[in-house]
Amino acid sequence: MSDDTGSPTRARAVIFGTQQTRIEQRLDELDPDLGGYIRDFAYDTVYDRPGLDLKTKELIACALLVSLGSPPELRTHLRGALNAGATEAELRGALMMCVPYLGFPRTVAAFEVLRTHLKGG
Amino acid sequence: MSDDTGSPTRARAVIFGTQQTRIEQRLDELDPDLGGYIRDFAYDTVYDRPGLDLKTKELIACALLVSLGSPPELRTHLRGALNAGATEAELRGALMMCVPYLGFPRTVAAFEVLRTHLKGG
Amino acid sequence: MSDDTGSPTRARAVIFGTQQTRIEQRLDELDPDLGGYIRDFAYDTVYDRPGLDLKTKELIACALLVSLGSPPELRTHLRGALNAGATEAELRGALMMCVPYLGFPRTVAAFEVLRTHLKGG
Amino acid sequence: MSDDTGSPTRARAVIFGTQQTRIEQRLDELDPDLGGYIRDFAYDTVYDRPGLDLKTKELIACALLVSLGSPPELRTHLRGALNAGATEAELRGALMMCVPYLGFPRTVAAFEVLRTHLKGG
Amino acid sequence: MSDDTGSPTRARAVIFGTQQTRIEQRLDELDPDLGGYIRDFAYDTVYDRPGLDLKTKELIACALLVSLGSPPELRTHLRGALNAGATEAELRGALMMCVPYLGFPRTVAAFEVLRTHLKGG
Amino acid sequence: MSDDTGSPTRARAVIFGTQQTRIEQRLDELDPDLGGYIRDFAYDTVYDRPGLDLKTKELIACALLVSLGSPPELRTHLRGALNAGATEAELRGALMMCVPYLGFPRTVAAFEVLRTHLKGG
Repeated sequence: MSDDTGSPTRARAVIFGTQQTRIEQRLDELDPDLGGYIRDFAYDTVYDRPGLDLKTKELIACALLVSLGSPPELRTHLRGALNAGATEAELRGALMMCVPYLGFPRTVAAFEVLRTHLKGG
Repeated sequence: MSDDTGSPTRARAVIFGTQQTRIEQRLDELDPDLGGYIRDFAYDTVYDRPGLDLKTKELIACALLVSLGSPPELRTHLRGALNAGATEAELRGALMMCVPYLGFPRTVAAFEVLRTHLKGG
Repeated sequence: MSDDTGSPTRARAVIFGTQQTRIEQRLDELDPDLGGYIRDFAYDTVYDRPGLDLKTKELIACALLVSLGSPPELRTHLRGALNAGATEAELRGALMMCVPYLGFPRTVAAFEVLRTHLKGG
Repeated sequence: MSDDTGSPTRARAVIFGTQQTRIEQRLDELDPDLGGYIRDFAYDTVYDRPGLDLKTKELIACALLVSLGSPPELRTHLRGALNAGATEAELRGALMMCVPYLGFPRTVAAFEVLRTHLKGG
Repeated sequence: MSDDTGSPTRARAVIFGTQQTRIEQRLDELDPDLGGYIRDFAYDTVYDRPGLDLKTKELIACALLVSLGSPPELRTHLRGALNAGATEAELRGALMMCVPYLGFPRTVAAFEVLRTHLKGG
Repeated sequence: MSDDTGSPTRARAVIFGTQQTRIEQRLDELDPDLGGYIRDFAYDTVYDRPGLDLKTKELIACALLVSLGSPPELRTHLRGALNAGATEAELRGALMMCVPYLGFPRTVAAFEVLRTHLKGG
């Protein structure tokens, strides 16, 4: 579904950054098919599709993870958005957009994940 | 909560565009307090907060409305994203990000709203 | 699970009001077991449980139906709340509580159902 | 991601049945990438994965579509479950499992889709 | 959006009770804008809106937090409902209304939060 | 609502297995009415309804618990599905069906619960 040059500019290399080996091993251990689907389909097919820049894709991913209420995965993509060039102000702006659409409880939980990440916790 | 200069660059003027009077009247008819909260808080406070550009805010809004499964409001913000400078390719890219996070049914429903909008239906 | 005296003060008699026969027939036609579960368990067991007044139960039901995004069932319970003694102001107050917890899109959709109901539409 | 022999026993051939051309054309018209992802990934990769029989997969799909509140897609997979060998009693059993996990409103909506389908509406 | 008399009968003073300083500081530390929105909009505007008594508002808030699956915030509002005059029986009645609308898993999780709170855990 | 022979083949005896006393005591401690509803309605009425085999019911229950994001209850029903005769491959197949319908984050969280269970953690 996509060329597989292993280029360091692939979305998952940027998003996972220094955590890439750890994250991909963990997913493969959960289920090798699941790990493959995430790598080959979610990242190397959907994320690597042209048409929208990676930073915006990651800000959207963060907002969608707020809607799902998934703290560990939100942290991965807050880091991914920063890796893709987002500023902290842009991250806060993306999370704040969840207030009018999803209400306060989901948004507060997201800012708690951001705070833990920024404190290196 | 924010100055009210009525400047044409306010987020809600851009997003609602030619539909502004119609949308705001409809909301006020539903409930004047609700209409006021949407105008004064959702738009003139949260949307007008600096830190993230309006086009990205609207792409995020579209993705969050896919998560909520709200076709009429999704259409308002697909139009809003285009009004804020997004291209059709960027809109498709934002909706496609919902595939790995929300699965196919919600995403297919969103592309149906986009298709109806682009056909002027 | 509960005595079945057919007393007119049972929750479902109050909530369904003049629509009782129509609603119960429709549910039985969908599936007789499902119709029985709703009558015997949801209404004659859970709703008829003491500890909270019926008007408050119906206002809570309305809010939960906003969270589910279920317009036809919301209308049944907006009518049920009015039948149980809620005022229009209390209904609006209950729906408005959805703004901070669920955000605007779900709440706007709920006020549209309320408006249609109040106009007799 | 999978061999493409076009064998009539592929999951999507069974599920879509006589509607296959119509459904696949509609998805491609929404977005060619989206249509391709659904065909190549959702069906020819995930659905065609061994380990669980197709009838059970479709009963699970129906329950998940009840959780999403997606009537048109639910109808496609109620039909798909019947095409894969499920009886009407098994379909009713699968939808009824949604009562304890999702509550009544989502389940009632699902039985309405089933009723429309069985009446050929 | 509302008069700011600092009166001890404001909704947030009643709901937060002895935890008010701690909660408001925590929210401001997450993001000062977010903290301000919750204080000025969610509480001093939406909650302080007349038309429905505070106890009923808090019982509705608890039910909505069950729908969101947000244990820490649910505990804040179980305490808030008790502070606003609800009895334990009324709290149990409000949570039990979630059974027919949301199913058992969300409701069981809510009763676990209630049990922890009542045990002072 | 159902015959009460106390037969060891009742759904809840199979699903809860060696944990039955512990689980039922915990639920009764949360609230005796809630415990009774789960035992008498959810299990002895809905689960014991004929029309679909127990193994398939439990695979559906697992998928619905993935949609709800409820890890502890998911674990109970992964165990229940194995108790009802499902193989590990069938469990993985049921969880994998969540990928196209719910996306990756919910599915990854479910495979983490499965992995913890299989490791006896």
